[in-house]
Amino acid sequence: MPSYKAPTADLLYVLHDVLRISETGVPGHDDLDRETAAAILDEAGRLAEKVLAPLNPVGDSEGCRLENGVVHTPAGFTDAFAAMKDGGWNGLDLPEAYGGQNMPYVLATAVGEMFVSANMAFNMYQGLTHGAISAILAHGSDAQKATYLPKMVSLDWTGTMNLTEPHCGTDLGLLRTRAEPQSDGSYRITGQKIFISAGEHDLAENIIHLVLAKAPGGGEGTKGISLFIVPKLLVKPDGALGDRNAVSVGKVERKMGIHGNATCVMNYDGATGWLLGDLHKGMRNMFTMMNEARLGVGLQGYSVAVPAYQNAAAYARDRLQGRAATGPANLSGPADPLIVHPDIRRSLMDQRAFIEGARALTLWGASLIDASHRAGDPAAEAMISLLTPVIKGFQTDKGFEMAVQAQQVWGGHGYIEEQGMSQFVRDARIAMIYEGANGVQALDLVARKLAADNGKAMLAFFDMVKAFINENDGNPALATDFLLPLKAASKDLQAAILFFMQIGMKSPDDALAGSYDFMHLFGHVCLGLMWSRMAKASLAALESGAADRAFHDAKIATGRYYMARHLPATALHLARITSGAAVVMALPAEAF
Amino acid sequence: MPSYKAPTADLLYVLHDVLRISETGVPGHDDLDRETAAAILDEAGRLAEKVLAPLNPVGDSEGCRLENGVVHTPAGFTDAFAAMKDGGWNGLDLPEAYGGQNMPYVLATAVGEMFVSANMAFNMYQGLTHGAISAILAHGSDAQKATYLPKMVSLDWTGTMNLTEPHCGTDLGLLRTRAEPQSDGSYRITGQKIFISAGEHDLAENIIHLVLAKAPGGGEGTKGISLFIVPKLLVKPDGALGDRNAVSVGKVERKMGIHGNATCVMNYDGATGWLLGDLHKGMRNMFTMMNEARLGVGLQGYSVAVPAYQNAAAYARDRLQGRAATGPANLSGPADPLIVHPDIRRSLMDQRAFIEGARALTLWGASLIDASHRAGDPAAEAMISLLTPVIKGFQTDKGFEMAVQAQQVWGGHGYIEEQGMSQFVRDARIAMIYEGANGVQALDLVARKLAADNGKAMLAFFDMVKAFINENDGNPALATDFLLPLKAASKDLQAAILFFMQIGMKSPDDALAGSYDFMHLFGHVCLGLMWSRMAKASLAALESGAADRAFHDAKIATGRYYMARHLPATALHLARITSGAAVVMALPAEAF
Repeated sequence: MPSYKAPTADLLYVLHDVLRISETGVPGHDDLDRETAAAILDEAGRLAEKVLAPLNPVGDSEGCRLENGVVHTPAGFTDAFAAMKDGGWNGLDLPEAYGGQNMPYVLATAVGEMFVSANMAFNMYQGLTHGAISAILAHGSDAQKATYLPKMVSLDWTGTMNLTEPHCGTDLGLLRTRAEPQSDGSYRITGQKIFISAGEHDLAENIIHLVLAKAPGGGEGTKGISLFIVPKLLVKPDGALGDRNAVSVGKVERKMGIHGNATCVMNYDGATGWLLGDLHKGMRNMFTMMNEARLGVGLQGYSVAVPAYQNAAAYARDRLQGRAATGPANLSGPADPLIVHPDIRRSLMDQRAFIEGARALTLWGASLIDASHRAGDPAAEAMISLLTPVIKGFQTDKGFEMAVQAQQVWGGHGYIEEQGMSQFVRDARIAMIYEGANGVQALDLVARKLAADNGKAMLAFFDMVKAFINENDGNPALATDFLLPLKAASKDLQAAILFFMQIGMKSPDDALAGSYDFMHLFGHVCLGLMWSRMAKASLAALESGAADRAFHDAKIATGRYYMARHLPATALHLARITSGAAVVMALPAEAF
Repeated sequence: MPSYKAPTADLLYVLHDVLRISETGVPGHDDLDRETAAAILDEAGRLAEKVLAPLNPVGDSEGCRLENGVVHTPAGFTDAFAAMKDGGWNGLDLPEAYGGQNMPYVLATAVGEMFVSANMAFNMYQGLTHGAISAILAHGSDAQKATYLPKMVSLDWTGTMNLTEPHCGTDLGLLRTRAEPQSDGSYRITGQKIFISAGEHDLAENIIHLVLAKAPGGGEGTKGISLFIVPKLLVKPDGALGDRNAVSVGKVERKMGIHGNATCVMNYDGATGWLLGDLHKGMRNMFTMMNEARLGVGLQGYSVAVPAYQNAAAYARDRLQGRAATGPANLSGPADPLIVHPDIRRSLMDQRAFIEGARALTLWGASLIDASHRAGDPAAEAMISLLTPVIKGFQTDKGFEMAVQAQQVWGGHGYIEEQGMSQFVRDARIAMIYEGANGVQALDLVARKLAADNGKAMLAFFDMVKAFINENDGNPALATDFLLPLKAASKDLQAAILFFMQIGMKSPDDALAGSYDFMHLFGHVCLGLMWSRMAKASLAALESGAADRAFHDAKIATGRYYMARHLPATALHLARITSGAAVVMALPAEAF
C-alpha cells in the first residue's frame, strides 16, 4: 500500500518564506503567523496521513454501490467523514456566523492539498459541499443562509453542483432541465443531470443540490438559466428534515478513477426547488464561484502527484537494480538502488520541480482570492481571473503526466493495481476533464481572460516579472540560473501575445489553434516566476543562517532544474502557436 | 461501445507507395504485390473488425479468472481464438516447414497493427506464442523444432516468455530461478516468475514456457543464465500430451489494463525443462529476439492509439457543443459539432500525425528485419538495432499520450468506463513498461546502440537523411514545408550526439541524464523523415493522376502539420540534453 507523508514544512515554506503571508495586509492573513499555521497544518496532516490515506486504496477497490436508491460509500468512509466533521475542517475558511473559523482561504487551500493527496475521491464529498456553500453565501437570501449554511458548514448536510446533462456539458445553453414556478414561490424541477459528484451517498443526513434549470421567460440559450436549491429531504420551517423530495439517483457511473466518490445520474421528477439568486442569472451566479472551483481542481492536479512522487522516490531508493554508470554505489549489495541512475533521477526531479512550483503558484492564487474577497482588491481579482485557467489546465495536465512518470519508476509493479500507483494516475486523469475540460480552459484564457479590461491583468503580470528581474539583477546567485531563463520565457510569452494581437484578432482560428500551447507556455512562465521567488527566498534564508540548510539547498537545486530543463519548453509552444491555424485546419471535417 | 475500422488503405499506402515494398529485392517482398497484400489485409481487417474488436470491452470488463489452478479467459475469447487459428494468422510469416506461410515479417506487422488495434489483450496470446516460436526457431535443436513448432504455429499450443522475478526485471543478473541438470539430459527448474503474460489460460491444449534460469557452473550475474523449454503438459516422444509438469499459476494479477490477458505469477517446483540453445548463453539467446519483440511493443504503442483516434474523431463530428468562432457551421442545429473548434482539430491532428508517422516507421523497421533475416543484410541489421529502442520507447510514450488526448475529446464521457475510451488509455500504458521500460530503452540507445561499431548505423541514418534532402531539394512542394524542418531537426540530433561525444564519454552521467530526451529527439527526426517520404510519395501520386486525390491531399496536409507543430520539439530536447547531468544529479539521494 502506498504511503503518504504530509509536506508540512514545504507548505509553511511557501506561505511564510515565499508569499510572506502574514505581511500581505489582507485581513486574516496577519493571523497566520508561522506557529498558528504550523499547528493547523500539523493537525490536518495527521488526519490526512492516519485516517484518509489508508482509505484511499479501499475507496478505489470497493467503489460506491447503488442498492434500492441508496448509495453506499466504501468501508471506512463514514468514520473518516465523522473525523472530518469533528475536526471542523470544512468550516476552516467559512464565516463564524455559520459555524466556520473564518481563517484565510490560502490556509484552507494548503490544508486541502493534504486532503486531496491523501484521498482525492473522499475529499470531494467535502469539496463539493464547500462549493455549494460558497454559492449560497454569495447569492442566497438571509433565510436561505440561515436554513442551509450551518448544517452544510458542519457537514451534517453535504452539497452538489448540477450542471451537466447527457447532451451538454460545456455548452450549457443547450440544457433541458425545466423549472416551473409554483404559487408558493417554489419551483418544480424536472430533468436529468449527469456526472453529479457526491450526488447520493450515506455520509450525511441530507444533500443540498444546486441545480441549473430553465425557468420560463428567460429567452434562448444560457440567458434563460437560473440556479435552484433542491434538497434531497425537504427542510421544515423549524429546520427539521421533512419529506423526501422528488429527486433520485438513476445510476452510479463506473469510472476510470475516483471510485470512492459517487458520480451519479440524478433524476429530477418535479422536485421542489427554490430560486438561488436572481431569476435568469444562473450562469452569472455560477461564474462568480468559478475561480475558486477551478483553482480547487488545479490544486487536485498537483496534489495527486504528491503521493505518487513520494512513493516513486521511496521505490527508487529501495529497489536494487543495475549498477551506477560511474561505479557501484552499493558495493555490499547485489545491485545499486534505482536512484543512482540519471534517468530515474531526471524523472524524480521532473516530478518534484513541478509539484513544488505548482504548490507555490496555487497558494499564490489562493492568496489573491483572499485579497479579492477580504480586501476587495480589484487588481488581485483580475490577476486570479487571468491565472485561473492556467492553474486549472496546466497543473492538471502536468499533474497527470507526473503521476504517470511516478508510476513508470515502479516498472511492471506500477501497473499492478494493489501497488497503488495506478490509482494515482487514474484519479489524476479526471482533473483534466471536469470543471471545464482543459481545452475549454485554454479557450477561456485566450478568448476571454487575456484581453479582459484591455489586457490589464496580463500587463500587470509582465510588470511583476520585470520588476522581479530588475530588483534582483544584481544577485549573481539568481542572475544566470534564474533571471536569464525567466526573461527568455517571458519574452516568448510576449511574442505569443503579439502574434494573437496581430493575427488572432483578424482571424480568431489563428488564436484558438494556439490556445492550448499558450496555456502551457503561460504555465511554464508562472512556474519559472515561482521558482525564481523560491530561489530568492531560500538564498535569503541561507544568508541569514537558517538552520535547515539542506532544505533550502534542495529548493535552489530543484529550481535550477526547472529553469534549465522545463522552462525552455516556452520556445516550442511559441513555435507551435506562431505556426497558426492553417496547418491545423487544413483538412475538411469529413477527412477525419 | 467504441468502433474500429481497419485502415487497409493506409497500410497499403505505406507498404507500396512509401516503402515500395515489392521493389526492395528482399526475398519474399517481391511476392507482396498490391493485390496480394490488399487481399490479405482485407481478410485480416474483417477478423479484426467483426470478431476481435467487439470482444475488446468484454475482455476489459470481465478480465481473467483463476479458479482451482485454471485460468478462464473472458467470454468469447475461445471462439475468437479458434477463428484466429483457422485463419492461420499466427503462421503468416513463419516457415512453411512448420505450417506457416512464409510471408514477409513486414506483412505480418501490418496485420498485427489491426489485431492490436482491435483487441490488444487478446492478441497477446498469439503474440507471445510468436515470440516463443522465434526463440525455438533460432536456438532449438531439430528435434525441439519438430516437437514444438508445428503445434505452436497452428496455435494448438501457445507460448510464454519467463524472465522477470519479484526482485528483478531489468537486472536479470539477480535472478534466482535454478536449473539442476538431471541424468536424462533434462533440468529441474525451481523458482518463481512474475508478470508472465498468457502464463495460463483456457485457449490452448498446452502452453510452452520459455524460462530463464541459472544452471550450475555459469558464474555470477547474467553469465550463468540459460534458457529452458518448460511445457505445461509434458510431450511424449510421439508428440502426444503426457503428464502435467510441476508448473502452476500462483496468481492472476489485477492490472490497470489489458485485463483480457492473464498476467500470471508462475511457480516452478522442480518442473522438467530442456535446455534451449547453448548452456549459459540464455541472455544472448534472448537478445537475438529482442529487436522483433520490442518492435512488436512499439507497434502496440501506436496501434492502440488508432481506435482511440477513430472514436475521438467520430465523437468530434457528432457531438454538438458550442459554435465556431468564425460563425455557426451547423445553422439548422442547436450547436456546431466539436470538430469546428480549432483546439479539437489540433488534438485530432496530433493524433493522426503521430499514428501515420509511427505506422510508416514501424513498417520500415519491419522491412529492415526482413532484409536482415531474409537477405542477411548487415546494414539493415545494424539500422534496426539502432532504431529498435526508438520505435519501442518513443512510440509507446506518444501512443499513450495520444490515447489520452483521444479520451480528452470525449470530455466527461471519456472517463466513464462503458464508453471504452478509458480502456485504450489503460491498455496503452503497459507498452511503456514491459519489454524493457522506456527508461531502459533510452539507456540501451545511448549507452549501447549509438556508439555500436563506431556509430556506423547512426552515420548511415544521417547519410540517408542528407541524401533524401539533397535528392529532393529542387522540389518546391517539399523544400520549405518538409526539407527545411527536417534539416533543422537532424541538426539538433547531430548536436546532441556531439554533446555526448565531447562530454558524455568523459562523464557517463552527462549522457545518461539526457538519454530519455535523446530517444524522443531521435523519434521526432524519424517521424520527420517518414513524413517527408510520405509527402514525396503523395506528391508523386497526385502528379501521376492518382484517383484518390483527397487521400493524398490529407497525407500531405497531415505531414505539414507534423513538421510545423511537432518537429520543433527537437530543439527542446536538445536544450535539455545539453543542460547536462549537474542539474539532474544535484541533490543527494537522501533528499528525495
